[in-house]
Amino acid sequence: MIELYDTTLRDGTQREGVSFSTEDKLNITKKLAAAGIDYVEGGWPGSNPKDIEYFRKVRELELENTKIAAFGSTRRPGIKADDDMNLRAIVDSGADVATIFGKSWPLHVKEALKTSLDENIKMVASSIEYLKARGMEVFFDAEHFFDGYKSDSDYSIQVLQAAAEAGADCLVLCDTNGGSTPDEIGSIVRVVKDKVSADIGIHTHNDAELAVANSLVAVREGAVQVQGTINGYGERCGNANLSSLIPNLQLKYGYQVVTAEQLKRLTATSRYVSETANLLPPAHMAYVGESAFAHKGGIHVSAVLKNASTYEHEDPETFGNQRRVLVSELSGKSNLRYKAEELGIELNDQNENLQEVLKKIKELEHQGYYFEGAEASLKLLLERARGEYEKLFSLESVRILTDKKETNDPNSEATIKVLVNGERVHTAAEGDGPVNALDKALRKALVKFYPEIKEIALVDYKVRVLNGQDGTAAKVRVLIETGNGDETWGTVGVSTNIIEASWQALVDSIQYGIKFKASKEAV
Amino acid sequence: MIELYDTTLRDGTQREGVSFSTEDKLNITKKLAAAGIDYVEGGWPGSNPKDIEYFRKVRELELENTKIAAFGSTRRPGIKADDDMNLRAIVDSGADVATIFGKSWPLHVKEALKTSLDENIKMVASSIEYLKARGMEVFFDAEHFFDGYKSDSDYSIQVLQAAAEAGADCLVLCDTNGGSTPDEIGSIVRVVKDKVSADIGIHTHNDAELAVANSLVAVREGAVQVQGTINGYGERCGNANLSSLIPNLQLKYGYQVVTAEQLKRLTATSRYVSETANLLPPAHMAYVGESAFAHKGGIHVSAVLKNASTYEHEDPETFGNQRRVLVSELSGKSNLRYKAEELGIELNDQNENLQEVLKKIKELEHQGYYFEGAEASLKLLLERARGEYEKLFSLESVRILTDKKETNDPNSEATIKVLVNGERVHTAAEGDGPVNALDKALRKALVKFYPEIKEIALVDYKVRVLNGQDGTAAKVRVLIETGNGDETWGTVGVSTNIIEASWQALVDSIQYGIKFKASKEAV
Repeated sequence: MIELYDTTLRDGTQREGVSFSTEDKLNITKKLAAAGIDYVEGGWPGSNPKDIEYFRKVRELELENTKIAAFGSTRRPGIKADDDMNLRAIVDSGADVATIFGKSWPLHVKEALKTSLDENIKMVASSIEYLKARGMEVFFDAEHFFDGYKSDSDYSIQVLQAAAEAGADCLVLCDTNGGSTPDEIGSIVRVVKDKVSADIGIHTHNDAELAVANSLVAVREGAVQVQGTINGYGERCGNANLSSLIPNLQLKYGYQVVTAEQLKRLTATSRYVSETANLLPPAHMAYVGESAFAHKGGIHVSAVLKNASTYEHEDPETFGNQRRVLVSELSGKSNLRYKAEELGIELNDQNENLQEVLKKIKELEHQGYYFEGAEASLKLLLERARGEYEKLFSLESVRILTDKKETNDPNSEATIKVLVNGERVHTAAEGDGPVNALDKALRKALVKFYPEIKEIALVDYKVRVLNGQDGTAAKVRVLIETGNGDETWGTVGVSTNIIEASWQALVDSIQYGIKFKASKEAV
Repeated sequence: MIELYDTTLRDGTQREGVSFSTEDKLNITKKLAAAGIDYVEGGWPGSNPKDIEYFRKVRELELENTKIAAFGSTRRPGIKADDDMNLRAIVDSGADVATIFGKSWPLHVKEALKTSLDENIKMVASSIEYLKARGMEVFFDAEHFFDGYKSDSDYSIQVLQAAAEAGADCLVLCDTNGGSTPDEIGSIVRVVKDKVSADIGIHTHNDAELAVANSLVAVREGAVQVQGTINGYGERCGNANLSSLIPNLQLKYGYQVVTAEQLKRLTATSRYVSETANLLPPAHMAYVGESAFAHKGGIHVSAVLKNASTYEHEDPETFGNQRRVLVSELSGKSNLRYKAEELGIELNDQNENLQEVLKKIKELEHQGYYFEGAEASLKLLLERARGEYEKLFSLESVRILTDKKETNDPNSEATIKVLVNGERVHTAAEGDGPVNALDKALRKALVKFYPEIKEIALVDYKVRVLNGQDGTAAKVRVLIETGNGDETWGTVGVSTNIIEASWQALVDSIQYGIKFKASKEAV
């Protein structure tokens, strides 16, 4: 039995740019529980008031198979465990599990704690005894354990033995600086396993791009708890990535760590955590990345379409991911045909459009368009190539004015003239910025003719500067994600003028939405 | 002796979004040679006319210790090697080395090549003989070798033996689908090593986040050539990452793969390749990432400042990277003090400003500001807190108009009123978009008073949408990088209105540039 221990909510937030609200943390906890995580480390109640609120609210979730852990350090030197505010906060948190970290490397005892090696061992033991006496399950994170072992193996083992004797339920060996190799981790875990009676856990960091392999070798040598974070978020190069470790343990090594149902949630969990952290989901990540099963070269695509195992090591649906065929400069006809079918458009070899459309796509990609995330724009492009595109409205003119006085926030206003069904509409709207004003004015002009537009809302708006070295005259690519409550679709626009790029993506999003995604009946 | 073989220019370009011009490829070749790469795979002359030009021009570089390899496949079934255009193109390329890939997995022989197992072995042998007869060093990439071995070990070994007998200088075992584990790679390489006489190489992919570990275990079992790409670029989840493998081999396993001098170029090489590929350098990458030695937690920072080995597994300067201390929500006073010193501002504990400034920073970061990439804005903020900020101009009003008619590109124009040294300036400018127009108008207004502004130019402009789910009303963060030819500095602005966010970053960039970076004498 291998236990999964997630520390996305604590160690994960050490990553640059990551910060979660209490609500975020509760939502992520639910997702982690649904994905089969056994332990969720929710935070450090002794160091962060925001975390106390989390521990209060997380009890209301009534999770069935997932336990919540509160993190903290061993007591301070020279005081009683009873008098340590940090330990008391762990107990007060009401968490099921206490995970406390302590030193096992003499360098840290002397330089960071400024205490004696002996007192450090007492700190470890008395802290664990204190928490155990209060009925908690206690995990001991032996910080810098592998560096400690390499510098003074006797002392580092003594610390573990003291923790085990004090009643720790698991001794988690931490490669805190992330510089150990699988050879080292393997041989050290083997020795430790013989010298201590308690269960062993493993907590690695990715500073040598070896965190996943290091965790696996520790499991092979007998570790029963694996700590990590979703997407490998964490300080510096990050923590061991549970998004890779879970399928590796389950599919490559045959451990039953989660159910098949839970494994299917892995990709969604990974994406949910990145969205909540406001980071782009890492596209090239093993198993769960958007590109993990994306095929670009024409040879690969035609082979995969015949037999997926030719270029796929696993079936992506097992962990909730999917195959993607990329339409790009390197694409052959098989890519485009596959994509067209997916979009519900018939193309055949005899169809000379195929060559033309490929050429057009390559030309547009050269200009900076990117259809991999904008399939609605691609579908409209294919429609245009087949003469099937029906223009729902046309622009006569638009004018956007942004006014700023002194240090006040600016006002933006758009006035627009469009032709719809032969009728000219002239209207205006204010917005939070020039693009928002444009969006509102266009919707206002169209709503009389296409009332179903009310069902369609923008869900994401992204701007990517393509050639930043040209400063504010740079070319930008705008990607818009639009939804009708059930589904979303992506569209793209490119220009040196952000208004023009936004306009292109906006027009496609509305055109596509009205034609394919909104039901007139519902209005 | 371990040989490094780089395929960034060939396998690396299979990554989504990567495409190199011939000039790019030549420049990258020079950087790779300077970083100590033994073999650079330049391209596939038989499949790509752009690559032929590369091979012609690369000869003019006269590289001393780096050999250039041309890539291609074994001959087609049923023809003579002499009649295969692809093999001929490899010879004609004038490269030192031919690297040809062939099948060693029966599934691929039958499904992809549609030929017999016997003919496939003849294809491998005769192709290698053909290239050897023309005086080339020949490497045989056994595509899907590990999958082949797992499905039919006898056949996969026969293919290798045929390649060795035909004279291949190295048999490169490829984990093409990237799904093998270190345990499998280790035990298979051990068997192969006993059964073939030629040198063994290793080529892995990262589909299970194990490519680096898999390459290392192969080396431990006797492989002498390691193939990979800079930053791990490659199809799907990428290739084995040479940016991690080189320091791992050299520093963790003690192989002398490059000189100390060459190792120092590693970070610059990694960044150069991402910039050329027009991708953001991967910040959290092991060894070379911008965040690989970035410390955020207050405890870590104070420990690292006392003794770097407490939280750093290697000295970042060894491979040309550097330590960074982040100023963020989680920061303590030691981060801010370190940063202030770096920026040339004295702060001390007694200074009550320190607490206030920290609070202000946390508040601004909460709103979406991000000082990790905007140290000029941070310095101005510290100046304001100390009452040392001298405002060089103030805005009375600005109005930006964008006009678009039908399908034409829009025009953007800004009119601005600013007060400089008590004088009101009222002017206007056109630009490529609203922000460019604003930038130009402001510069026009200021140039009379601060002629040194002409030295300052915007070098990068980035827009990040912070809460994309609010559609076009989302909050955006603008990061501007400005330079004076010698140095660059970063500034930041945040608002729901992109014009306002750009204005904030623009004002800081100019304020900072005039005060600290432009020399009046030079004008």
